[in-house]
Formats: sequence, C-alpha cells, structure tokens
Amino acid sequence: MARLLQRKKSSSVKKYAQEKSTTVRVIICRDFAKPAGARLVGFFGWFLMILITLGRATCKIKNATAHPQGECMTTNLSTTQLINQQFRLAARPQGMPKDSDWQFTEVPLTELNDGEILVETIYLSLDPAMRGWMNDGKSYIRPVGIGEVMRAGGIGKVIASKSPRFAVGDYVSGGTGVQKYWQGAADDKHGGFYKVDPRLAPLPKYLNALGMPGMTAYFGLLDVGLPKAGETVVVSGAAGAVGMTVGQVAKHKGCRVVGIAGGPDKCDFVVKELGFDACIDYKNQSVKDGLKEHCPKGVDVYFDNVGGDILDTVLTRINMKARIVICGAISQYNNTEPVKGPSNYLSLLVNRARMEGIVVFDYAPRYGEAVAEMAKWMQEGSFKSREDIVQGLQAFPQSLLMLFEGKNFGKLVLQVGQE
Amino acid sequence: MARLLQRKKSSSVKKYAQEKSTTVRVIICRDFAKPAGARLVGFFGWFLMILITLGRATCKIKNATAHPQGECMTTNLSTTQLINQQFRLAARPQGMPKDSDWQFTEVPLTELNDGEILVETIYLSLDPAMRGWMNDGKSYIRPVGIGEVMRAGGIGKVIASKSPRFAVGDYVSGGTGVQKYWQGAADDKHGGFYKVDPRLAPLPKYLNALGMPGMTAYFGLLDVGLPKAGETVVVSGAAGAVGMTVGQVAKHKGCRVVGIAGGPDKCDFVVKELGFDACIDYKNQSVKDGLKEHCPKGVDVYFDNVGGDILDTVLTRINMKARIVICGAISQYNNTEPVKGPSNYLSLLVNRARMEGIVVFDYAPRYGEAVAEMAKWMQEGSFKSREDIVQGLQAFPQSLLMLFEGKNFGKLVLQVGQE
Repeated sequence: MARLLQRKKSSSVKKYAQEKSTTVRVIICRDFAKPAGARLVGFFGWFLMILITLGRATCKIKNATAHPQGECMTTNLSTTQLINQQFRLAARPQGMPKDSDWQFTEVPLTELNDGEILVETIYLSLDPAMRGWMNDGKSYIRPVGIGEVMRAGGIGKVIASKSPRFAVGDYVSGGTGVQKYWQGAADDKHGGFYKVDPRLAPLPKYLNALGMPGMTAYFGLLDVGLPKAGETVVVSGAAGAVGMTVGQVAKHKGCRVVGIAGGPDKCDFVVKELGFDACIDYKNQSVKDGLKEHCPKGVDVYFDNVGGDILDTVLTRINMKARIVICGAISQYNNTEPVKGPSNYLSLLVNRARMEGIVVFDYAPRYGEAVAEMAKWMQEGSFKSREDIVQGLQAFPQSLLMLFEGKNFGKLVLQVGQE
Repeated sequence: MARLLQRKKSSSVKKYAQEKSTTVRVIICRDFAKPAGARLVGFFGWFLMILITLGRATCKIKNATAHPQGECMTTNLSTTQLINQQFRLAARPQGMPKDSDWQFTEVPLTELNDGEILVETIYLSLDPAMRGWMNDGKSYIRPVGIGEVMRAGGIGKVIASKSPRFAVGDYVSGGTGVQKYWQGAADDKHGGFYKVDPRLAPLPKYLNALGMPGMTAYFGLLDVGLPKAGETVVVSGAAGAVGMTVGQVAKHKGCRVVGIAGGPDKCDFVVKELGFDACIDYKNQSVKDGLKEHCPKGVDVYFDNVGGDILDTVLTRINMKARIVICGAISQYNNTEPVKGPSNYLSLLVNRARMEGIVVFDYAPRYGEAVAEMAKWMQEGSFKSREDIVQGLQAFPQSLLMLFEGKNFGKLVLQVGQE
C-alpha cells in the first residue's frame, strides 16, 4: 500500500486521497515525528484526522532507527504549503563577505514532480571553499550566480519522495545549499545526494571526517602526498576539518605528524586529543623555528590548507622529493590584492619536489574506501573528529566569517533543522 | 713501455728520464700536437731533442682520430711549467654580476700526483644556473666560495694523465671550471669527468643536446613532464639550450609543441629550423593571447625555464592534470628583491595539476639512454642543435651576461682552447 503511492505517482497524501477513494496508510517514523517532522506533520494533522475518522487512513508511528531500510518511507506530503528559507548571493564580495552580499528569501515550495525528492536540511557544512565559489571566473566548479541560492553541502532528511532512489525518512548527504529545504530530481548531479547511516556515526560526522573534508584529507594525503611510514608529515589548519583528519590518517600510516594551528587550545587539541607528535602555534611562535625543532629530519609531505607565508616557510624546510599537497589557501581567499604566490617555489627545483592540487570530487567513486577505513578507526577509538556547531540558518553570514578569522575549533557546521 | 710510465709512477718524462736510464718512447697524437698541444710540447721540445739525441727517447706523431683507444696516451709532461688562467669569484653579486665580482688569476700548475689528470679546457658551458651558484645559501649544490674558481662545465682534452681511467688525448666532459686547465684526481666527484667521442658529434654538442642542457631537457620532459602523444607541450626559453631540445624531443614523441622565445629571429628558428608547431614572441606579443591562439586545447605540459610573469600566464591556461616542469627561472636569477612566486599557483588546485622540479644530476646513471636516442635522431637529420660560440677566456664576464639579457641565440659556449 505504501509503495502504491509511488507506483500510482500521486503527488501527496491529500491529492491521492481526493482522487482515489481508498485507505491510505501513513507511517510516520518516530524520529521524523519530532520535532521537525512533527512540525511538518502538524500542517496536515487536521487532514489526517479527517481521513482516519473516515476510515480512509491509518497512522502509525515507528522508530526509524529500528526499521529495516524502506519500511518507513511513505509520508508523501504536499510540498506547496511549505515555505523555504534561503540565503542567496546578492553581490560578489570584495574581500571578506559582508551582510549586504547576501539576500535572505522566503519562497513557497512547488509540487514534487516525478523523480523528485524534498530534503529538509538539518546540518550545513561551512567550508573555506565557499569563498571561492562566490568569485567569478574559471575554477574547478562554476561560480554561484548572483541571485542563486548559495551552494553548500549538507545533511538532511527526505521528507517527501517521488523517486524510488530515496524513501521518506532517509538521511542523505548532498548539495543542499544554504536553505531550509532542497527540492529537485533525486539524481540531480549538483545535488549528488547519497544516503548516510546515522547508526554508523552521528550525522555531523558525515560533514566532517566521513564527508567532504574527510575525503579531501584522506585522498589528498594518501593519493597525492604519498606518505611512507617514518616520514614527516606537516599539515596546516591542523585543527580544522581537513587538517585534523590528515594528521590522524598520517599517524595511522606510521608517519611523524606535525600540525600548524592558531592558538594554544587548538595545538593542545591536536596533540593531546588527536595524537599528533607536535603542533606549531603560528599565532605565538615562529613557524620556521617550530619546523626546525619539530621536524629535525625535514619535511617529506606538507599538506597545505592555508597558503601565504606559512607555505613559503615550509618550502624552506622540505626534503628531497618532498610532496606538497595544495588543498587550499584560506589565508588568500579574501585578498583584494592578487594572491601571494610562493616566493620560495624554486625550492621545488632544488629539492626535486612536487606541488600538486587535489579536488575531492575526483575521488567520488572511491569514497567508500575512505569511509570504511575511517569508520573502523572511529569504532576502535583511534580516530576522532570534532565539530563546532552553530545554531540557526540566520547565523549563516556571520558563521561563515569564523572560518577566515580562525574562530572555529573543529569542523564548522551550521545546524538549521532538528535530527 | 708507454704504460710503464704509469706503472713506475714517475711523474713526468723528465723525472723518469732522470731517474731511470732507459729509452722513453713518447707518442704525440697528431691532433694533440696542433696547435694547443704543439704549444705545450714546445716547452719540452729542447728536452725531448736531447733525449732523442742520446738514444733514450723516441718520438712519433700519430693521428689521434685513427688510433684505437689507449694507444696514444703517453705524453706525460711536467705540469709545473704551465700557467693556468682562471676566473675566480671575488664577491657575491647583487643583481647582475659586475666585472668587480670576478678576479682573474694566473697561477702555475703543480706536479700531477698519482691518479690525477690534467685537462686543457676547450669549450666552456655558460649556463643560467651559474648565477645561482654565485649566491650563498642552501641549494642543490654548494655555492661557489669567495676566492674559488668559478664552477663551469666544459669539454677539454687530457694532456697529462697519471690515472688509468684517462689517456692523454682523450676528450672529456666535466666540471672544468672557468679556467684554462683543470688538474685533479681522475675520479674527483666534482670534476665528474667522462669521455666524449668527437666522431659521434662535434664537441660543442656535448655541452648542448648531448650534455647537461640536453640531459635536463630530455629527462625533465619525459620523466617529469610525462607527455603523451597528442598533448600540447609549451616550453619557455625555446631557443635556448634546454628549450630547443625539450621542443624537439616532444615533437619526436608526437606532441603539439609551442615555444616561447624573445624576438622574431628566435621564433623563426624554433619553428622553421627545429619544427616547433608555433612560437610566441614574448617581446612583441601578449603571451596570453599567443597561448589562446596556439594552444586551442590548453596546455598539458609546461616546461618552465624562465619563471616570473610567463609562468603565471601559462598557469591560467593549463589543462586538468597538467604537469609543470620547474627547470629554471632565469627571469628571477638577478633579482635583488625576493623571487616573484607564481600568484596563479592555485590553478594547480583547480586543475589537479602538478609543479615539479628537476635537477639533471639525478639522472646521471641514465645519460646514456638520452645520448643514444638523440644522437640517433641527429644522425637521421631529425634533430638539431645550435650553439652560440664566443671566443676567449677573457670574454667570460661579459658573455655570461648575454644569458640574462636574452642575447645568446642557441646554447652559449665560450671557446677557451683549440680542439
């Protein structure tokens, strides 16, 4: 009966009930029912009650975490009564993004078409890369257009589905954008949604070690950095989403790991909590001196998240045949002047070394490998991740700035809905 | 009898004749005898005449090019009567080297010790890398010390030998330094002498395509650039020693080849003489426009000899997974300000591209491969090299500057002795 709704291609409980005079069985998953789900269901509560009273509907609340895949997938509701809240790009920022670079909009959702899903965003990933997407010009991904919803990765829950790929109640990861709801084709390539399993790890981890930052760290380090046991790996932004995973993967691979982070708390965290061998606090000590002290055998792999002076300093300490992974350059993203290129790049020549870029999307077919290995380490207790969770969609513009001010401690996540 | 001189470890014809009352057979190779050899032999002519008269020496002139290896190796003469002429580093240059940065010295040679050879320099290689060797600081090779003879590669002839590794008359390539004679252990690692065969190619080619620049080009392109047939290879300094070989090797490997060079003559040369597909004259046209026009499919391999703005411009035109070979940065070598790092290095990230340094010495065990392949192409007429030969040791300081002013056309060679 549940699946009949999909087979019959009706768009909502309401519409189906009006068109077909038969019993509708609505199964509401318990964790969907509270509190975001409850709010949604609330909109239709009066209608459900009428159907139930007429004997044309039954309603049962099930525990989503206990149900086998697909059993709890039948709440198809009318999307047209939901109001989406969105942050759109209003202007291309000069330097640091300002409030006026954003436009907050509220728009009603439209009916789901066949093959579409409606995802309610729960967690949004705030990433340094977002700053790049706001600029015009050729890049590895097209810029966000003026007036478009800001691009963002997120974790959400499917609350309506006209696609066999996803059932209502599924938790998914994908390009939700900075908005309360994402609606579109289940196989939309920009959405790129895939299911995540909240039993395997808490949902925010899927935006961190088990999400893009973790995939970036894992494949950037292992496939581009090519670390060998016994080598010295240095990573900047060490307490950030990518950095913390880089360091822990490198430790698991038998390397000496030295982080670079801003402030004693972050340095303490990566050494004491994550098990790095050392950490250089770039805000309070010379990076050059720190590298001399903590990398007595030089630097074999440098995983760069920051660019600028730190990249230039590490270039003076690299070993023969060193590998520098260019993952980001957060120090340069808000420059209004041209990016500062690495003046010491000729160290690559002197040391026959390599500097190479990584874009995580290239490794999509292999994400499973990384998730499997890191999830195993997590379950063994030898791998940690930390998220810095800010509450509320409205906090988006200010939260984003935290990244560039080094104010976040751990992967920065914006919670915009309830699990 | 000839070899007896070595076995008896006497240091010269004169000494041997004085110590041992026996017949000395001196064989003078014909090409050694003229004109540099003749001048040397001239010093001892009176002495040889006496020995011959006394029946204690015979003298025979042989044609070096016809003799089998080792037959003509016995002219061991006293080195102490020869005066060496040298350019020594007097001061570390600020910017472009000045005359006052050099000291010209004349010093007598000393007696050869066992295992040593005396090489008369014929051709000196003038290379951009020499500018780097004049600076203090860590590099791939130690700096030339103040007061030391300037380091240089050269081709010379062995004119005295107390080593079984080299015979008098052998032509050799190695680190002669900017001086008329090189004297030292035959297996000196800084000298690094190895025999070259003037029958296979004219001697100056051994400083060009069959020497360090050629080896740099060959291994830098093939081992670091990893070009595939059909790809587009761009090379700067295209009419220079390294560039001309890079382009020709790339053509032989089936690539589209676009050079960047200064002036219409150089561009004509690389296109019409060397067979490049196109050449961008950076002195008279926009490199950006030239790349757009001549690399419609983007740039897969960029072999960089110049650094600076040209590197930055090429970075905007690279393809996914492009390889940038960092061979040199001649535009930056005389900077008194810090080197200009490539501002567009984040193009490496966007394009998952790689920038990697090459130092030719790493490939020493494989030079034979490169010489064999390029010599074959030369003999087939499908591979050319061009040398720009300046006469006279005294011209050294001014000749070196030609490199940085782009005045040389082809591999810059200083001829300081006769073949």
